[in-house]
Amino acid sequence: MGETFVVIGGDAAGMSAASKAKRENPDLDVIVFEKGEWVSYGACGMPYYVKGEIAELEDLVAITPEEFREERNIDLRTHSEVVGIDREAKTVTVERSEANRASEPRAGRNDPRANDDGTYEQAYDDLLVATGARAIRPPIDGMDLDGVFTFHSMERAREVRDIVAGDAAERPESVGIIGGGYIGLEMAEAFDARGLDVSVFEMLPHVLAPFGDSIAETVEDHLREQGVSLHLDTLVEEISGEQGRVAAIETEDDRYSVDSVLVATGVAPNAELAESAGIELGETGAIATDEYGRTDDPHVYAAGDCAEAHNVVTDAPDYVPLALTANRAGRAIGATVAGDPTEVGGIVGTAVVKVFDLEVARTGVTDPEVAEEAGFDPVSQVVTAGSRAHYYPGGEPITVEMVGDRETGRLLGAAMVGEEGVAKRIDTVATALHAGMTVEEVQNLDLSYAPPFGPTWDPVLTAAKVLSGKLE
Amino acid sequence: MGETFVVIGGDAAGMSAASKAKRENPDLDVIVFEKGEWVSYGACGMPYYVKGEIAELEDLVAITPEEFREERNIDLRTHSEVVGIDREAKTVTVERSEANRASEPRAGRNDPRANDDGTYEQAYDDLLVATGARAIRPPIDGMDLDGVFTFHSMERAREVRDIVAGDAAERPESVGIIGGGYIGLEMAEAFDARGLDVSVFEMLPHVLAPFGDSIAETVEDHLREQGVSLHLDTLVEEISGEQGRVAAIETEDDRYSVDSVLVATGVAPNAELAESAGIELGETGAIATDEYGRTDDPHVYAAGDCAEAHNVVTDAPDYVPLALTANRAGRAIGATVAGDPTEVGGIVGTAVVKVFDLEVARTGVTDPEVAEEAGFDPVSQVVTAGSRAHYYPGGEPITVEMVGDRETGRLLGAAMVGEEGVAKRIDTVATALHAGMTVEEVQNLDLSYAPPFGPTWDPVLTAAKVLSGKLE
Repeated sequence: MGETFVVIGGDAAGMSAASKAKRENPDLDVIVFEKGEWVSYGACGMPYYVKGEIAELEDLVAITPEEFREERNIDLRTHSEVVGIDREAKTVTVERSEANRASEPRAGRNDPRANDDGTYEQAYDDLLVATGARAIRPPIDGMDLDGVFTFHSMERAREVRDIVAGDAAERPESVGIIGGGYIGLEMAEAFDARGLDVSVFEMLPHVLAPFGDSIAETVEDHLREQGVSLHLDTLVEEISGEQGRVAAIETEDDRYSVDSVLVATGVAPNAELAESAGIELGETGAIATDEYGRTDDPHVYAAGDCAEAHNVVTDAPDYVPLALTANRAGRAIGATVAGDPTEVGGIVGTAVVKVFDLEVARTGVTDPEVAEEAGFDPVSQVVTAGSRAHYYPGGEPITVEMVGDRETGRLLGAAMVGEEGVAKRIDTVATALHAGMTVEEVQNLDLSYAPPFGPTWDPVLTAAKVLSGKLE
Repeated sequence: MGETFVVIGGDAAGMSAASKAKRENPDLDVIVFEKGEWVSYGACGMPYYVKGEIAELEDLVAITPEEFREERNIDLRTHSEVVGIDREAKTVTVERSEANRASEPRAGRNDPRANDDGTYEQAYDDLLVATGARAIRPPIDGMDLDGVFTFHSMERAREVRDIVAGDAAERPESVGIIGGGYIGLEMAEAFDARGLDVSVFEMLPHVLAPFGDSIAETVEDHLREQGVSLHLDTLVEEISGEQGRVAAIETEDDRYSVDSVLVATGVAPNAELAESAGIELGETGAIATDEYGRTDDPHVYAAGDCAEAHNVVTDAPDYVPLALTANRAGRAIGATVAGDPTEVGGIVGTAVVKVFDLEVARTGVTDPEVAEEAGFDPVSQVVTAGSRAHYYPGGEPITVEMVGDRETGRLLGAAMVGEEGVAKRIDTVATALHAGMTVEEVQNLDLSYAPPFGPTWDPVLTAAKVLSGKLE
């Protein structure tokens, strides 16, 4: 009899692990429990579905449940929530939803350990916790009013789209977005495209905090040009309602009438299941893992938005819940479980977001406080350069903030913004961070040049050149 | 009295060196001799000037002669050709053109060593040879016919533009381009935009030889779709004429009527001046240099299109005459001469070219023969992936060929092609090459992801992932 690899959670990390493990070791029994209906979906595409650029929610699905079952021979059990882990017995307790019991008699049917309450136990040899993250619910009144949305599941995305694309009579005319992070700003673009008046409320002095002030200011100017009302440094105290429906956002000083609210105040790791089984969490609140994605239990792995990763710049655990990290860690864990020990790889915190016509990107450590905490003496430089040769038509300015360490000259990170050529330019910096390059080494990179694609000295090189002079 | 830094050649390398040297050490006398009229011009922009996307030839000039003279205090002498170097006496012999003698009495006027033939001697403490490259003239008949152009000077660019943008009666209707390299293909786009019938003749089996067959085939399909006639594997034997004008291109098997011809069969370094002074040339035919851009004479430097650079992948001298290398080496030499020894930095051979709607890029070593010569056992992998998330509208396929070394797993190079997102994606690979990364390390890079800008696994990561599997 083969060994059993049990995966909790059927999105990026979970399904990558399941697929890789089964492909590398077909004798392995691979069972995935997913509490919802959707697996392997591109959550990052949800704003564009709401916006209307993607026709069907189903388009976001990379691989269907049927394909996982039939083609990849994975025992995928949807509507099945794992509610407990017994690490001593090496079992998980599974609760089937009503939908599951009605439609899927198969799951658990051969299991002699079915419990009286309808749950059942499933034994594992190796276990992956890939329970993802959830939208944070801020502690303010009015969260349960009609017209208040959070945005962290496919079901919610469909709901929001149905409302904004629905009959004019029922459609909200305005939306207050609480939170000026990635999702808040992507959704600002989506709602604006749907004709809503959009206001963004951010309690920090700037939107997109991880990108730094210089970059954020460019984004803020652009948002205002697009007609978005920005309320920075503004704490929302309450969502007030009338007859059970959203009526206004109340801040310390003011009251803003809106007829819908999106709460996008960040995500938190779903680490409770692991924690309740006594698995160690890290300082970030996500599940602590080693270089193989293993928790402090050698038979229990964690990956994706519920787990920490290793930041190679700070050489410390970090929590950056993004898709590529989840995919890669899942895949590596799948290989390890199948018998080919594979490191999940470190991260440098690279991210990119589209905000209306802007590309906004970051990588590494740019926040001076974070840099100092990690033992660096950060020096920052902001430069603006063209996205094309000065004489080639259609170029747009790109603003780059680059940060290096005064003592060692080492590159620590960068953020940039512009209307073209930003998203993939950040990858040059990310690669240099992985290599531990100095700013001077970055300045000497032999990057591509042709007039339609950049100036002779690429903006990244110019930033490194100026920063390098400052570090001397 | 300060020391004297003499620069031969007033384009990218020369003017970068002059500017940097003077800025770092204002006491230095910096004299630049330029045999033509133009300095510091963007030769890479010439095809777009002919195409009509750039209005004036002067737009290509980054800094005017007046700015160099007045603002940067550089003694710039145009229409002044250096015809000899006496390394023992540490002087150069300068020949002034007619235009110079008429308009610019200043140059040489205070020099007591003016010779009887009108030339004069200029002493130097340090000398930079930045004499550039020239278009190769293939040894075929008909090169002197009216309607035959080469393309390696601003004057020629203006001539070509005047002809293709001129009166319809005198305008050629067709052009045969001999040579399917960068310039040939950029000019194919320019001529096509001007309404000419364009045929490209390439003696090798594919266009863009340094990009490899897989990439070239995509480019060739695209050229044909644009209506360009391609004649590959075809040696031009003669340009035949009638009454002194181009009439046809003659190949071994055929005769193609054309009424103009562009010869774009590559460039050769202008190394003769240095060679005649006994300075060592490298195997490539360009001037050999060390890590500071110094020739075998410690007071004579060489940079730009006349000089070799150090390829960090092959760890050997290489000749890749491109703008960034010239700028950077010039700048480093300027700093060194000013008293701050600065290495010119190695290259990895990164290049990008726009061919109609395609972006075509390369870096490192992708040619198996070159790789083997450098002691590698090259393994290649071609993958095609999307430029955006599969569900995000407007994505285009990107084809990547990536090459690694079987024994060490080291990344050797890559080439790629696609309608968007290629030009700057190659820089990720270039950066990894500078860092000496393995293909597996590339696979583990934390690159940026958002649906509008790429799939979760960037095409570079996917290529590395598949190649990595092949290398195991």
